[in-house]
Amino acid sequence: MTGAKPAIVIHGGAGTITRADMTGEKEAEIRAKLQESVQAGYRALMAGESSSRAVIAAINVMEDSPLFNAGNGSVFNAAGNHEMDASIMEGAGLNAGAVASVSQIKNPIDLASRVMTDSEHVMLMGDGAEEFARQQGFKMMDPASFYTDFRWQQLQRIRAREQAKADQKDQWYSTVGAVALDMQGNLAAGTSTGGTCNKRWGRVGDSPIIGAGTYASNSSCAVSATGHGEVFIRHVAAYNICQRVELGTPLSEAADTVVNDILVKANGEGGVIAIDRYGNIATPFNSEGMYRASIDTGGAMDISIYREDGEAEGALVGNVDH
Amino acid sequence: MTGAKPAIVIHGGAGTITRADMTGEKEAEIRAKLQESVQAGYRALMAGESSSRAVIAAINVMEDSPLFNAGNGSVFNAAGNHEMDASIMEGAGLNAGAVASVSQIKNPIDLASRVMTDSEHVMLMGDGAEEFARQQGFKMMDPASFYTDFRWQQLQRIRAREQAKADQKDQWYSTVGAVALDMQGNLAAGTSTGGTCNKRWGRVGDSPIIGAGTYASNSSCAVSATGHGEVFIRHVAAYNICQRVELGTPLSEAADTVVNDILVKANGEGGVIAIDRYGNIATPFNSEGMYRASIDTGGAMDISIYREDGEAEGALVGNVDH
Repeated sequence: MTGAKPAIVIHGGAGTITRADMTGEKEAEIRAKLQESVQAGYRALMAGESSSRAVIAAINVMEDSPLFNAGNGSVFNAAGNHEMDASIMEGAGLNAGAVASVSQIKNPIDLASRVMTDSEHVMLMGDGAEEFARQQGFKMMDPASFYTDFRWQQLQRIRAREQAKADQKDQWYSTVGAVALDMQGNLAAGTSTGGTCNKRWGRVGDSPIIGAGTYASNSSCAVSATGHGEVFIRHVAAYNICQRVELGTPLSEAADTVVNDILVKANGEGGVIAIDRYGNIATPFNSEGMYRASIDTGGAMDISIYREDGEAEGALVGNVDH
Repeated sequence: MTGAKPAIVIHGGAGTITRADMTGEKEAEIRAKLQESVQAGYRALMAGESSSRAVIAAINVMEDSPLFNAGNGSVFNAAGNHEMDASIMEGAGLNAGAVASVSQIKNPIDLASRVMTDSEHVMLMGDGAEEFARQQGFKMMDPASFYTDFRWQQLQRIRAREQAKADQKDQWYSTVGAVALDMQGNLAAGTSTGGTCNKRWGRVGDSPIIGAGTYASNSSCAVSATGHGEVFIRHVAAYNICQRVELGTPLSEAADTVVNDILVKANGEGGVIAIDRYGNIATPFNSEGMYRASIDTGGAMDISIYREDGEAEGALVGNVDH
């Protein structure tokens, strides 16, 4: 399958994203960063690099931006610290790596990838994961370097609301992720997150869980999820879609069934990005919006935030299956 | 479905279990403890308790015994400490709870259950999980209380072998687990482990991962796995079996395909215990042995360690589907 036409899809999180909350300036900034991310991944693919390298390149752009809840823009936990999670999987050999609750790693997706390539394990967590990172030559960041004023103010708002027992729905269950198909016909998926704002007790969401937040298999598809992690774990969201595709369901139908039927019934707000080995793309979400961008096998780029974007920008979408 | 005939299956780990390593005295001790465990769970079921209560009752017996790698008998990690994992899931509402890397909890399956019932989360880890436990009134154990001479000597042997770059295959990827069907027709699954001996870097195996080590759904089956965790994670072993059953494959065939085909091809040594909503039981393993016991819907008890046990004790097995 060498010579396949590559394609890539990224997301920057789903959740309570409404036009009312958004300024024109902020929206332009987010769209520009989504474009930078998807183009970074696509450039890697066009240079003949592997789908996992492309996934990492795309995610690194979002991790390095304060606009998304991952890496540099990670939310604060209840103790006022950062606990970041990431996972990556390659569809060719089902190799996978994941880290949970790291606080000193600039790009958690890089460490997840190193777990995949340089350890005999799939998942490392906490101080132990950072000990592995140190042995692998990763630079340890000052945890304070992850401070952003926007996230700190968000924590203060949520703390105030929690004391008022108000609705905590908009804790921003957001993540970043990417899925890609490379010229060799290999799929990969990756996800990186700063967790949920104000989280306690070492809570682990779906992002570092292979099967729930991330899955890739060349015999089906590659999926990265973003949403209410607990529900995505209980329904094994990413693998759920892959196994349906493996058994013959078209990608768009499989992804739609899981996101808009199974997860909706379980109150699991969020969405997924998915790509199959033919380059078909699906980006269903049941939340008000999902930051997302794609470049399909025909080279057509789409950058969307709201539900109606896909239709409004139909002319740009080309032969994308969504 | 109230009035269904209950049934339960337990395991005490799979791995390099050979008659050569076993003394008659030790084997008798293990069989007696497996019997005590399966009977504790069955007694709960016959008293009308839920399948999750039965799973906990059965697992508690094994956690409290030094014979199994869970709770009291947990192996030592590379730093000479204990890091225990556990998870539980109810098939009726797909509720689930899990803890990873706790070191001061006598019965980690109880804490996983409390995460399920008394938090809005599915998975908690490390110090945070123990902070939750403290708030829930769990007694914090002295980590030294998990010391057993057998496990300490095992760590010394493995350390010595590792320095000699010898085969580390027999690191005892072992766990304990239980699956049950209660009188209300509800399924549940649970798994508890001390991890792998001499493990480093905060490694997380399949046991606390919903989908990999544990899964239960009333629309399919309940599964608890034991084996080479990394491979079980990459193949989402427990949920993989459940989704096959949901799509119409008989339990024994689904469990056999995953354990003796998919996992074998991926060098994933181990096994699973599984029960479906009709009380069919499957206990496939691809390792030399798996500590296991069951009481089926007809009340027939089976206690087995080696592969040939099932046949040798066929008379005891009754209508068990395995």
